[in-house]
Amino acid sequence: MRYTPAGIPVSEGRLQHHSTLIENGSERQVEVEMAVLALGDAARWLEAAPLGGMMRIEGFIAARGRNSRTPVIHANTIEYLEGNENGTILQEED
Amino acid sequence: MRYTPAGIPVSEGRLQHHSTLIENGSERQVEVEMAVLALGDAARWLEAAPLGGMMRIEGFIAARGRNSRTPVIHANTIEYLEGNENGTILQEED
Repeated sequence: MRYTPAGIPVSEGRLQHHSTLIENGSERQVEVEMAVLALGDAARWLEAAPLGGMMRIEGFIAARGRNSRTPVIHANTIEYLEGNENGTILQEED
Repeated sequence: MRYTPAGIPVSEGRLQHHSTLIENGSERQVEVEMAVLALGDAARWLEAAPLGGMMRIEGFIAARGRNSRTPVIHANTIEYLEGNENGTILQEED
């Protein structure tokens, strides 16, 4: 976990999602992995998430910054799940 | 617009989003630009969307493919909007 100059905790990691969805009437497997970032209390939850653990995240997607268009999931709320849901923390970064 | 080997129409473009949201109690500007893809009827709607036009898209995000982790928005439904909503088609690709 790091802190902004204003002292706000920031945690980053990578989130892996897999699911089976319907697209244009056909079932398909979906896999995607994206960077995830959280501030404040959500950062503490993200930091405490077990690697490989399942979670549900609500938030939004924003570009990493002015110099990078890479989309990053900003987690406003994080809910730990047991078992068979979709999100998995792959890696936590300091 | 292109077609899959099975004859399903596929349309691709880029979607730009901007909005003002609350993160950790503070207002922030969000900007993000991502690839968008649609199949079937949704492909026809995406193809017909005016460049720079506003739209609301529902769907999911998946990695582009086995060799690319780039996240792509898959549009299941596309609604054209007038005026002040968030999504904008930046570029359509054949």
